[in-house]
Amino acid sequence: MNTSFPTLSEIQAAHHRIQPFIHRTPIFTSSAINEMAGCELFFKCENFQKVGAFKARGAANAVLKLTDEQKAKGVATHSSGNHAAALARAAKVAGIPAYIVMPSNSPEIKKKAVKSYGGEIIECEPNLKARETILERVVKKTGATFIPPYDFMDVIEGQATCALELLEDQDNLDIIMTPVGGGGLLGGTALTAHYLNPKIEIIAGEPKGADDAFQSFHAGKIIPQSGPNTIADGLLTSLGKLNFELIQKYVTDILLASDPQIIEAMRLIYERMKIVIEPSCAVPLAALLANQDRFRGKKVGIILSGGNVDLGKLPF
Amino acid sequence: MNTSFPTLSEIQAAHHRIQPFIHRTPIFTSSAINEMAGCELFFKCENFQKVGAFKARGAANAVLKLTDEQKAKGVATHSSGNHAAALARAAKVAGIPAYIVMPSNSPEIKKKAVKSYGGEIIECEPNLKARETILERVVKKTGATFIPPYDFMDVIEGQATCALELLEDQDNLDIIMTPVGGGGLLGGTALTAHYLNPKIEIIAGEPKGADDAFQSFHAGKIIPQSGPNTIADGLLTSLGKLNFELIQKYVTDILLASDPQIIEAMRLIYERMKIVIEPSCAVPLAALLANQDRFRGKKVGIILSGGNVDLGKLPF
Repeated sequence: MNTSFPTLSEIQAAHHRIQPFIHRTPIFTSSAINEMAGCELFFKCENFQKVGAFKARGAANAVLKLTDEQKAKGVATHSSGNHAAALARAAKVAGIPAYIVMPSNSPEIKKKAVKSYGGEIIECEPNLKARETILERVVKKTGATFIPPYDFMDVIEGQATCALELLEDQDNLDIIMTPVGGGGLLGGTALTAHYLNPKIEIIAGEPKGADDAFQSFHAGKIIPQSGPNTIADGLLTSLGKLNFELIQKYVTDILLASDPQIIEAMRLIYERMKIVIEPSCAVPLAALLANQDRFRGKKVGIILSGGNVDLGKLPF
Repeated sequence: MNTSFPTLSEIQAAHHRIQPFIHRTPIFTSSAINEMAGCELFFKCENFQKVGAFKARGAANAVLKLTDEQKAKGVATHSSGNHAAALARAAKVAGIPAYIVMPSNSPEIKKKAVKSYGGEIIECEPNLKARETILERVVKKTGATFIPPYDFMDVIEGQATCALELLEDQDNLDIIMTPVGGGGLLGGTALTAHYLNPKIEIIAGEPKGADDAFQSFHAGKIIPQSGPNTIADGLLTSLGKLNFELIQKYVTDILLASDPQIIEAMRLIYERMKIVIEPSCAVPLAALLANQDRFRGKKVGIILSGGNVDLGKLPF
């Protein structure tokens, strides 16, 4: 396959497009964590992003690129996570309807977030088949445009804007790390870094209990996720096709972290940086700390992907 | 009493003095919390300060102002909280010894922080009498200079630098709020605001379960704290004398918040701003939300005092 991915100027145009609707998130550092890690870390705080996650970027970009005719009929997706809230908010900002198919067992806090942005929730059985069937029905009935969470060019283009900011603010990085679930953030980040400085290594962190990207990366073909079991609840999905193509082209490596390592890294970030992150977000730091030799003395950018966590269920 | 408090240029000199050793902390805003509160809030994030609290300022200033002769013998204090860690760190930076008298029942995490900065811990019975007696003994033996946590001019001068930054970054505030325990932060903030813009109202938030500042403010004399009972464990002490004088001169009002209100405000800050704060830190927002009419439409600076919290004991 030789897909035509967004060019640098298209990513820059996307950044310009979404800029009024997103935060330019800050980069945090911690001398204590640097000392522990033996390298210099630059955390891009997408936990402070609108809707509390980088997903605000891709959703905003996808919605803003719709034609007026498409906009009139709204957007739809199925998601139990941050993409649901991000799409609902992007639709609200654009003044168009959003239809969100959510599994009936989705956490109340996620449903509340979607509702707070005026999204219309359609509940379904908690399995992928039901989600897809109901979504198809909704799209047929409303004429809304389906905006997938990661395997979609305009979404990848939006997520790619995060590394654009990171490298504008910190242009001397040796490595950039992100978590990997569906691969939207990882793929977008790899693409931007490839354009701006192909010498930068792109390394993903993935939970041992949901290691489909690691498996796929080494097998050279997509191996779907089956029976994931990890605290990193934002990384349970399988890799998307477009995302895998980007990963094969531009990603240097995928490193794994166990749940205890993820929890320990999460605690470090709370205690030392005084910021709230979700478990998925701690995976790159956990993977780095589990492979310190590889990073020694390097300058490493880490994208903290989101901060939407149930405070009543923190693992410490 | 007509004490001679630091002048504006002395506070500015203190800021210059400590600047290499502290963070210039950012100001955060949240449109969601603004909407809820009915006013515009500017949070000065001292939870991101060195040692995780504004106390780094006063301790650094006091240590840096010592004579060489004093420095040679080190510093001492009794504290179970943030001042202990702040003084230990300030001493470490200056390359001098710090003797910290801590009640034997101090949380392990607080002792660990002091040790991590090379402070020497001397344990004592957990009561004020024992703390003072042991401290006196330590000072006598070592010749170290006692740096009190709040009732001390150089500490107040250091804490006053926080409002200096806040008003440099956001010069159109109608009101500034801080929590009040011993009154170091509140007094210093009131002093700086008085110099820079005496029209700014200074309003403290205090827990209902430890309302000695509220009582003292209205009685016109210091009424010591007895049997405090609140989750805001940084605000259990009685007002200092110098601090009370500043409060009488320059503080507009002290508003109370119940523990459930404090916990609710704390949760709001975690959920909406994605930052880690300690319970004491949430008291001003809690007091504001309990008195919304008074703040409607105003621009309010809130100093978030610290982020040192036992993550295993969050109240939600």
